[in-house]
Amino acid sequence: MSMNLPFLQVDVFTSIPFMGNPVAVVNCMNATDGIISDEQLQSIANWTNLSETTFLFKPSDEKCDYKVRIFTPASELPFAGHPTVGSARAYLKFTGKTKVKSLLQECELGIVNLSIADNGKISFRAPSVNIEEISHSAIDEYQQSLSIEHVATPKLLHVGPKWVVYLTSNADTCYNANPDFAGLAKVSKHYGHSGIILAGKKPGEGNEYEMRAFAPCEGVDEDPVCGSGSIALIGYLQDLYEVQETTEFKITQGGRVKRQGHISSRVVAEKDGELSFVSGGDSVIIIEGSITL
Amino acid sequence: MSMNLPFLQVDVFTSIPFMGNPVAVVNCMNATDGIISDEQLQSIANWTNLSETTFLFKPSDEKCDYKVRIFTPASELPFAGHPTVGSARAYLKFTGKTKVKSLLQECELGIVNLSIADNGKISFRAPSVNIEEISHSAIDEYQQSLSIEHVATPKLLHVGPKWVVYLTSNADTCYNANPDFAGLAKVSKHYGHSGIILAGKKPGEGNEYEMRAFAPCEGVDEDPVCGSGSIALIGYLQDLYEVQETTEFKITQGGRVKRQGHISSRVVAEKDGELSFVSGGDSVIIIEGSITL
Repeated sequence: MSMNLPFLQVDVFTSIPFMGNPVAVVNCMNATDGIISDEQLQSIANWTNLSETTFLFKPSDEKCDYKVRIFTPASELPFAGHPTVGSARAYLKFTGKTKVKSLLQECELGIVNLSIADNGKISFRAPSVNIEEISHSAIDEYQQSLSIEHVATPKLLHVGPKWVVYLTSNADTCYNANPDFAGLAKVSKHYGHSGIILAGKKPGEGNEYEMRAFAPCEGVDEDPVCGSGSIALIGYLQDLYEVQETTEFKITQGGRVKRQGHISSRVVAEKDGELSFVSGGDSVIIIEGSITL
Repeated sequence: MSMNLPFLQVDVFTSIPFMGNPVAVVNCMNATDGIISDEQLQSIANWTNLSETTFLFKPSDEKCDYKVRIFTPASELPFAGHPTVGSARAYLKFTGKTKVKSLLQECELGIVNLSIADNGKISFRAPSVNIEEISHSAIDEYQQSLSIEHVATPKLLHVGPKWVVYLTSNADTCYNANPDFAGLAKVSKHYGHSGIILAGKKPGEGNEYEMRAFAPCEGVDEDPVCGSGSIALIGYLQDLYEVQETTEFKITQGGRVKRQGHISSRVVAEKDGELSFVSGGDSVIIIEGSITL
């Protein structure tokens, strides 16, 4: 029996249509529990051909607004950045809620706090950020595939995906890099990393960075605009510069794949002395309709 | 100013949702002429991330039903197979026509004749099929990247895309092949070919073939179900076996990328003694709604 569910395809981290990162969102909140198999969810995500397709369900934890399940064409993810922003935007549209200022999203990695600014920008607080050293040989192998120098020791950031953050001398060097994707895929696969976040600072006093995200071993040579990558980058910069106060970062991404993404990120000094890591931005609903399963 | 246009995403060469090859179709037939720039069409196709996105316009030749423009994420194509079937299916849905038995589609390569069977299957007659020899060195290089033997001399089929057809000993050998995509991309690019159509005959008397389509130099390692590839294959088989009578071929494709595509192809001996090449199959409308430009 075929089933018809509400469907949105949202452009994330942009206010200009088609210049951000798309995510397909299927509203399963009114579907009978268990009527859609995991196999079906995976085959839908394989078919949309987007880096991520998400499915909204009723939360199992009643303090949450919804539960999201996030799929790449190949597998399910515990958490991802732009799909979180796009799913929140879709949740607001599906439910007709216009005055909400915060949301609690349930996902496999845990509960994610989201806030909605007056201008409509949606931000999420990273559910988990851990930093780890990587071996000299891994660094050398990455450097060979990237063919550019790093200006600080690359490290591994666990933020859901496992990104190696590789800081280069400036924004232009980052933008102009032509990595060997086959080589990168080999190195990432060997060490069990998701991929590389390449970044370079723009000139001037502000914390403005050009960023690129390469995950060829996951089948995505270059992700247009990457939310979890922005968290990895500010987690890395916090560690590198020992940032202890609330600090804003502006990240641009996507120019080399004909997008113009903007991510607003923030290291936040919480009242309890802990640090948290927040990223967000604009989003635009591009496709609105229904999907037949 | 934003614009809202009717949108469909159609699954082609399957009757089972998510098991075919998707194409996004935007109905621009009621949009003011010239209001959408070529740049916009290209950026939409870049964003959907599908192998093809098509746009339906009023025909410039009044005997045609519609004009289609076909875009990959990177460029415009003069003709393509599964986007033609999907666009025809979308045209029928957009216009509410249910009793039409034939359509004339205008596209960059020329006018394409389509027929709609009583069971809803849509077939197209290939606008152009030409066969050409390729060099021994090209054949050797392809063989190295495919790592399997051919059972007849591979040739180049111009059917819009330029496919090298590579016939192997049987369907299983075709299904199990693990080509070196980076190697294939290099060879195709060097010789200016779109990619490789790999095929192997199934056991038994019928003309049943397993087929795979590789176009890594166009950014598509493996196309799930390929209409123009099916035309290239039957063009090649017609030449190889000197087929002069109307002959049916059944082609299955997509198993290795988790699809189950079925293409019905036919070499047709026309009354004037000419041969024509026809392919078609089922299609399912999966996403229905609107797109905001």
